[in-house]
Amino acid sequence: MSRFLNDPDNAVTETLEGFLLAHPELERRGTSRVVTSSTPPTGRVAVVTGGGSGHKPAFIGYIGDGMFDAVVCGDVFASPPVGSVLEAIRTVNTGHGVMLLLGNYSGDVMNFEMAADMARDEGIDVEMAVATDDLGAGSNVRPDQRRGVSGQFLIWKTVGAAARQGASLAELKQLALDVNSATRTMGVSLNGCTLPGSTKPTFSLDEGQMEVGVGHHGERGRSTEPLVQMDEIVDRLVDEIDQDLQLREGDRAAVVINGLGGTPMLELYIAYRRVAKVLQEKGVSIEVNFVGEYFTALGMHGFSVTLMRLNDRTLGLLKDPARTPHFTQTSTPN
Amino acid sequence: MSRFLNDPDNAVTETLEGFLLAHPELERRGTSRVVTSSTPPTGRVAVVTGGGSGHKPAFIGYIGDGMFDAVVCGDVFASPPVGSVLEAIRTVNTGHGVMLLLGNYSGDVMNFEMAADMARDEGIDVEMAVATDDLGAGSNVRPDQRRGVSGQFLIWKTVGAAARQGASLAELKQLALDVNSATRTMGVSLNGCTLPGSTKPTFSLDEGQMEVGVGHHGERGRSTEPLVQMDEIVDRLVDEIDQDLQLREGDRAAVVINGLGGTPMLELYIAYRRVAKVLQEKGVSIEVNFVGEYFTALGMHGFSVTLMRLNDRTLGLLKDPARTPHFTQTSTPN
Repeated sequence: MSRFLNDPDNAVTETLEGFLLAHPELERRGTSRVVTSSTPPTGRVAVVTGGGSGHKPAFIGYIGDGMFDAVVCGDVFASPPVGSVLEAIRTVNTGHGVMLLLGNYSGDVMNFEMAADMARDEGIDVEMAVATDDLGAGSNVRPDQRRGVSGQFLIWKTVGAAARQGASLAELKQLALDVNSATRTMGVSLNGCTLPGSTKPTFSLDEGQMEVGVGHHGERGRSTEPLVQMDEIVDRLVDEIDQDLQLREGDRAAVVINGLGGTPMLELYIAYRRVAKVLQEKGVSIEVNFVGEYFTALGMHGFSVTLMRLNDRTLGLLKDPARTPHFTQTSTPN
Repeated sequence: MSRFLNDPDNAVTETLEGFLLAHPELERRGTSRVVTSSTPPTGRVAVVTGGGSGHKPAFIGYIGDGMFDAVVCGDVFASPPVGSVLEAIRTVNTGHGVMLLLGNYSGDVMNFEMAADMARDEGIDVEMAVATDDLGAGSNVRPDQRRGVSGQFLIWKTVGAAARQGASLAELKQLALDVNSATRTMGVSLNGCTLPGSTKPTFSLDEGQMEVGVGHHGERGRSTEPLVQMDEIVDRLVDEIDQDLQLREGDRAAVVINGLGGTPMLELYIAYRRVAKVLQEKGVSIEVNFVGEYFTALGMHGFSVTLMRLNDRTLGLLKDPARTPHFTQTSTPN
């Protein structure tokens, strides 16, 4: 598949250059892969994330008031190096510590852990929370071995809001773990994706097939199945999520319908329509929803459904204002 | 190409149902195709748009404070019927008149004109402004015969802001025409798009080709050409736009890089990077930019570049706050 690029090897660098030109409220030191808000955190814990590139608006689209203070950018779908993570920690620490949020990918976890250790040796307080919301590989996979996918948006939003409100590092870590425990995601797609510089997609399906349990790197999922109607797909995703999450009548939920980059919003809202009906039948009220592209995979035609069980605290944090290049809300997202 | 749908014939209806469930601050009477803000305009002109569906976030994603009061939704890529346009006008008119904004497509223009005439017969003040920002067919096409494409976002934003500030109907019409005159767009794509219910794309290209001058209905453009590097594509688009728009050193500009639905944001920012460099070389300052998916075409892999010459008034209106389901800004978009 063709792409609109210059030299594919420069894709991430040029994207960062474009992003910084478009959003002068962000900063980058020289040619580093660390992007920060130009407003340093004052009197509070800083929040940092990072990972491979190619997921925009994640991660750099969410730098700003109420979300991230810094993002460390790897190459496309590749972990950022230890030195960059350490640079990010040093840059945003103002003596109140740094909360690292990341998804459960071995390269990211290893590099962030090493950087955290090195920062601690320098006297910086650092905590780390690893997201594992993905049920794509099946609920028989141990929770700590699941990937972090689009449910992470809810962790980013809540932890960012709590940090702004002055929560301690220990509180932020516990919050991230609590939100992660209350959140499950499952995704489907009609194709894989093509990395810059490649001409072949990571996988392709025949007409009338779908891949169930995909992540956001164009990996194959758990199974290739006949494509059925949207309502049936959503029923199945919600059912699998709910078997693990165990929502009960009277529960309050947050819902994310995340497009992977090539899915028309029309399809995302048809999916949301069904999720809303299914949860209503269960007696679960949706208190906040996010329908759109929050965490993409280079134009992949697929989507994921995320459900999160809310409490008063997490609901308030999700509705808290935020102002970033690609996510702004004034008081409630609705 | 497969899609995630139920019965394709119900795609628009189900999308609207999902959208209304997700955004309870919007309203729809029964099963009509007219969606309004649940906050009626008070003491000011109402702003209405509409057209075919399949372009989300346009149009209904922009209903709310500072943009539209109502949107009339047609079937996918099809004009809404006269009766629906009239219903929209009647619903949002509070005695201060209704400003209709639309793109230059014969069906839309005919139906909106007929509805406007019928509303005037009922004593409602109605004005209409037709956007013609597309240079896709070439600058030799008469301005009044050009299509309205993603530059319309700038018309919606400025007119919506001015309406909120209390501008008169005549002022809003003049503003829409002025912004239209100051705005040009050109698009390219790597493929067409597949309508719900169809299995064939509107067109497809060989690997290594691009279509120049595309709109947002999956139509072919002006020419099929070898795919070149992004910087070269952008240089060509900006050059064609500028030959017609005639930006001068010292001018201030707004830029929209609009993804057509299947274009990774990474590519959009690489495009923006080049636009920023080219305009800087010309001595034109970019005062406001919008990079993302503002007006899509069902997952088409393509993008357009829009340039607009700003003045103090239009710059202020673009930076004015807005709060809608898919576009919110607090004071400046940056």
